[in-house]
Amino acid sequence: MLRILGVAFFALVTLPALTSPVRAEDGYDLWLRYRPIEAVAQYRPLATVIVSEGASPSLDAAKAELTRGLSGLLDKPVSAGAVADGAVVIGTPLSSPLIAGLKLPLNTLGNEGYLIRSVALNGHAVTVIAANSDIGVLYGSFAFLRLIQTRQPINRLDIASAPRLKLRLLNHWDNLDGTIERGYAGHSIFDWNKMPDYLDPRYTVMARADASVGINGISVNNVSADVWMLSSMYIGKLAALADVLRPYGIRVYVAARFSAPIELGKLKTADPADPTVQAWWKKEVDSIYRRIPDFGGFVVKANSEGQPGPRDYDRTQAEGANVIADALAPHGGIVFWRAFVYSEKDPTDRAKQAYNEFKPLDGKFRDNVFVQTKNGAIDFQPREPAHPMFGAMPKTNLALEVQITKEYLGQTTHLVYLPVLFKEILDWDTLAKGKGSTVAKVIDGSLEGHDRSAMVGVSNIGDDRNWTGAQFSQADWYGFGRLAWDPSLSADGIAREWLGMTFTNDPAFVNQVVPMMIASREAVVDYMTPLGLHHQFATSHHYGPGPWIDDLARPEWNPVYYNRADAKGLGFDRTPSGSDATAQYAPPLAKLFSGPDIPDRYLLWFQHVAWDHKMRSGRTLWDELVVHYDTGIATVAEMRKAWAVMKPYVDQQRWSQETAFLAIQEKEAQWWRDACIAYFETFSHMPMPAGHAPPPHDLAYYKAIYFPYVPGAAPHKPKDPVE
Amino acid sequence: MLRILGVAFFALVTLPALTSPVRAEDGYDLWLRYRPIEAVAQYRPLATVIVSEGASPSLDAAKAELTRGLSGLLDKPVSAGAVADGAVVIGTPLSSPLIAGLKLPLNTLGNEGYLIRSVALNGHAVTVIAANSDIGVLYGSFAFLRLIQTRQPINRLDIASAPRLKLRLLNHWDNLDGTIERGYAGHSIFDWNKMPDYLDPRYTVMARADASVGINGISVNNVSADVWMLSSMYIGKLAALADVLRPYGIRVYVAARFSAPIELGKLKTADPADPTVQAWWKKEVDSIYRRIPDFGGFVVKANSEGQPGPRDYDRTQAEGANVIADALAPHGGIVFWRAFVYSEKDPTDRAKQAYNEFKPLDGKFRDNVFVQTKNGAIDFQPREPAHPMFGAMPKTNLALEVQITKEYLGQTTHLVYLPVLFKEILDWDTLAKGKGSTVAKVIDGSLEGHDRSAMVGVSNIGDDRNWTGAQFSQADWYGFGRLAWDPSLSADGIAREWLGMTFTNDPAFVNQVVPMMIASREAVVDYMTPLGLHHQFATSHHYGPGPWIDDLARPEWNPVYYNRADAKGLGFDRTPSGSDATAQYAPPLAKLFSGPDIPDRYLLWFQHVAWDHKMRSGRTLWDELVVHYDTGIATVAEMRKAWAVMKPYVDQQRWSQETAFLAIQEKEAQWWRDACIAYFETFSHMPMPAGHAPPPHDLAYYKAIYFPYVPGAAPHKPKDPVE
Repeated sequence: MLRILGVAFFALVTLPALTSPVRAEDGYDLWLRYRPIEAVAQYRPLATVIVSEGASPSLDAAKAELTRGLSGLLDKPVSAGAVADGAVVIGTPLSSPLIAGLKLPLNTLGNEGYLIRSVALNGHAVTVIAANSDIGVLYGSFAFLRLIQTRQPINRLDIASAPRLKLRLLNHWDNLDGTIERGYAGHSIFDWNKMPDYLDPRYTVMARADASVGINGISVNNVSADVWMLSSMYIGKLAALADVLRPYGIRVYVAARFSAPIELGKLKTADPADPTVQAWWKKEVDSIYRRIPDFGGFVVKANSEGQPGPRDYDRTQAEGANVIADALAPHGGIVFWRAFVYSEKDPTDRAKQAYNEFKPLDGKFRDNVFVQTKNGAIDFQPREPAHPMFGAMPKTNLALEVQITKEYLGQTTHLVYLPVLFKEILDWDTLAKGKGSTVAKVIDGSLEGHDRSAMVGVSNIGDDRNWTGAQFSQADWYGFGRLAWDPSLSADGIAREWLGMTFTNDPAFVNQVVPMMIASREAVVDYMTPLGLHHQFATSHHYGPGPWIDDLARPEWNPVYYNRADAKGLGFDRTPSGSDATAQYAPPLAKLFSGPDIPDRYLLWFQHVAWDHKMRSGRTLWDELVVHYDTGIATVAEMRKAWAVMKPYVDQQRWSQETAFLAIQEKEAQWWRDACIAYFETFSHMPMPAGHAPPPHDLAYYKAIYFPYVPGAAPHKPKDPVE
Repeated sequence: MLRILGVAFFALVTLPALTSPVRAEDGYDLWLRYRPIEAVAQYRPLATVIVSEGASPSLDAAKAELTRGLSGLLDKPVSAGAVADGAVVIGTPLSSPLIAGLKLPLNTLGNEGYLIRSVALNGHAVTVIAANSDIGVLYGSFAFLRLIQTRQPINRLDIASAPRLKLRLLNHWDNLDGTIERGYAGHSIFDWNKMPDYLDPRYTVMARADASVGINGISVNNVSADVWMLSSMYIGKLAALADVLRPYGIRVYVAARFSAPIELGKLKTADPADPTVQAWWKKEVDSIYRRIPDFGGFVVKANSEGQPGPRDYDRTQAEGANVIADALAPHGGIVFWRAFVYSEKDPTDRAKQAYNEFKPLDGKFRDNVFVQTKNGAIDFQPREPAHPMFGAMPKTNLALEVQITKEYLGQTTHLVYLPVLFKEILDWDTLAKGKGSTVAKVIDGSLEGHDRSAMVGVSNIGDDRNWTGAQFSQADWYGFGRLAWDPSLSADGIAREWLGMTFTNDPAFVNQVVPMMIASREAVVDYMTPLGLHHQFATSHHYGPGPWIDDLARPEWNPVYYNRADAKGLGFDRTPSGSDATAQYAPPLAKLFSGPDIPDRYLLWFQHVAWDHKMRSGRTLWDELVVHYDTGIATVAEMRKAWAVMKPYVDQQRWSQETAFLAIQEKEAQWWRDACIAYFETFSHMPMPAGHAPPPHDLAYYKAIYFPYVPGAAPHKPKDPVE
């Protein structure tokens, strides 16, 4: 048994319970596979018939899911009928006299929570799935199926669950031409050209998957927004999509272009203070709500990476957000106003700019505005300290934005289990109101007494048959939803659930693969950007290493801006002697990050450190850096070995694909390590530590590596090819 | 029973044999579905075991296909074993002593033909599938399965088949960034970014489908070629793909950019007369063959639509083709040199230019060059007269290029069964050497004694789950392959085969749907471009009507160039009094097309006709035009009705999708008709014929219709949206 960074890998495994060849699968069914369980005899008496009084699209969806799920899992038809022993009785007190008669304690469950309870009903032992709303019933039905899918006992149930966050959203960064910014799972599943006349059955499968983990809203287009999305033609298409998603409790949102009043409305300005602009947004929003009565609202990326925004008119971000919020408010719509801003004219440390711009606006945003804040102050790196705005904007609704798609995390092929990263942020203690002021408590509203709460994930869904490009990336979608519902869940527990539903619950499999998933996040940090390094990625597509890049137009786009490698050392000095970004954190954190006690993992994020600085381990910084790179590769090698012996537990197609992907991941981990070391050693001039091989090529070799077409990047004309 | 244009539709149908709900399918299995047949008892004794001596990748593929196919069709495991009653014995005389011992008449079958025969072997009644090569055995195995799939008797077989055309190729117009020029089935299935490390299982499924209809080569990239495809990086990826396709008898070809010696080779010129250029092509080709020993060769689009070519150096098309051909010849490689040329500097009728440029070069091309000639002189229109080069280039290998993807044929959603169009061209009599000088005989080499022969189809394959975007577009891929193998097959028979394999052989279904497919081609001609009209398509994306367009940079890009609508009449005068394009045809055809006996269907292609010209029907041209548009719509309406009642025979998902698509087709047929009539009536000033409604909107309405993102078009920045 090997241990890598404290994680156990079982190199020897027991044989699987079923030795017959497992049937081929391609991942399309996600975690809603509903294959027959082993112990059907034990479960069958407990789910004999589905009893549903009343009808609504959401109740029908719940009934259909239970029919599909129970029939599959129990390997016999389970359909709707009358109360009997083993019945599964679903409904709300309003829709179902049976449920009403039970007088269940639903009052604390809100509009989306559910209760699952084993009860006696008319002399029969039944399971009730009850809620205050039909969508709560649907959520409860998925939860009930999950119990069986993960082989939990269901004979004495008493489960109550309600989401801690009210809005649990995916942002699809899908362009209307079918490409996806930072998409690594093929192209957009939204076939706008055929809507509204043809609605791909995939939309329904996606809605089921989203609802199964509690996702209740999606924005459908890239935040670098195409104004066509707001045109009458596309709103008509969106209305048809909304009809498909509505039964599953999913509202549609649109990424709105701030200059739409000009491009679409033919006004001369998009100035939020201009009455014609205000009137235009009102008219536009009213018109959307006429066609989509439960329209969610807008996501806006303003004055960010070239997008138009209120700063073009010397208005604040709050003034920009509020003009749109005012148009939405009468309909209950929301603005998600992104805080991802940094200016090409501002020489301030990029990490500080969003805080600097938004913090003074605390309290200035309308109540139906969320300031949508990325988990860190830079951009979805393998590891970042939490964004300093969390805890610093008590009078503002803050939504946490995480990236589910793996822009900076190896993209399609690298296995990096992201719930570990999400948890690290949710559990981050801002200390804003003393110990325990976690990001989770900031965004769920409890820390500062907000009624509104939201968490947003940048979707990793594409039209790849397996939805996410790689099997294991499905776990990131799944885990995002589960954590948005309940941030207190553990990454380990979520992995266990997902593996059981997606592959098998066999302990020999789950116990091998859970540690592999958990270890994968630290592995990518180690082989890409260890010890607090960040944004060392090749230009534009962010595929592969580019620590030497120094020729991009804006200084803060260059990796050298972030690594600050020089003859003395490595890292970005953000202490008071440097950019003083540490001062944006609560004082105890500011002190920690500026001083000698800073955790290794954030060291080079906040401090410029001498190459021969003595680390906690006793090694020099240089040696420690090399050891981390190699540890990352070693972990991936162990992951490959762990997966290789899982062959008997997994169908051929899914096993083979992941096997190929892990080989790519190991090769690319090595590339990352070699390229970064080849660059940094031109500054450190230090020998490789004993037992660690130097990069096999010189720096020029790594600099010359070029890929003309990397998925997820904006269209571009590639360089001339190399023969 | 309704009759539209002589085609019968059965509005009332008998109930299907199986009334149970048909299992859901999504089209991924194409025509290789292998679902259990009704009469298993009858067939099972005739296919009990597969006997294969020797082993090779192609024999293994044949064995695997028979195992999969027979086990599925007969609903019981059929595997490899020893000779017994009902054995299916496969092999070549070289690989199999059993086959050798039978002394079968294989000598006329060439390298790809096969023989399937019921014989006695060691006292057992068996079926042999024999050939001179392993790939012939694979073709025979697919043919044997097809017999069962289409419910033919297999107890007394004596079938010999060899392809009439030696090269049967698909051209994929796939860009390396994943988009597909004129692709209406999603994006490219070639995931170059993950090759060679990961090979999508789809490649194998595609290879099986290609091989099942005899396709033996594919060019993998757009003819508007990206020079990166020739780079060492991409040739390495291609080599991995070639390894997947090789067992299925499929060679890989590449669309080569003529200026590659400059962009890739860093030479100063691509002049074919330059010795350094000649040496570069030789070196490049040698290097490809070292990695792909059976590399097929190149497709070249030169001096066409902005592509570089030999004319840039005042060299002929033949000189351009030959420099590459000379590099390929030692390896047995082929150049497909496209004849699709027309110059922005030449005011000659575009329809004449390719002939004018190539005809004088007859006899100047190397023997390993095909001049790849589109079916018509313009560009894949719903109907064109055959290209005048067929029959006019006796000393040149001519390959026929047809478009399987439906650029000008309604794209994804319109049901237009293309084998009818392909047959119209193959059966076209050029009269070059008297009656019977069909295009089929030109391209199969028999008319002019060529040893080489080829037919090429522009692929309609994409990463859509059903491969081709619409179920019925699979029939075009299927039909292309079948006709390239044997141009004498009928479109009707191919439809019947395909329907039986893809949906059901139930006569109530097949007899309803075959006429619907056959009628579909004339329908699209009628509702888009009746009576010889052509190229009336909206700019760039070719989706929808644009007969009024007159503002494009090059005159021959404008629909008005082709329709020549004016106060007097309609149509392009290509008679001797006009462009004299008729003179490019054999004299009897030239006379026919210039005179009063011209068939209606080519009228406006060759003649400018007065609005009040009396047609064969007795109607004026104007009335006839309107009647044709409306007939097209009526046929689609009948197709919808016919499909609607097919619901009991088809699984829900495939039936529903086609139902939605037919509704779109009918709506868009109406749009075509209304827009074209609204434009042409501004010239004819004639009233609508009795019983035919005027367009519901004015011309401005149709002109204003704009779609920002149509699949298959080159990336572009759309116009500002309309609110």
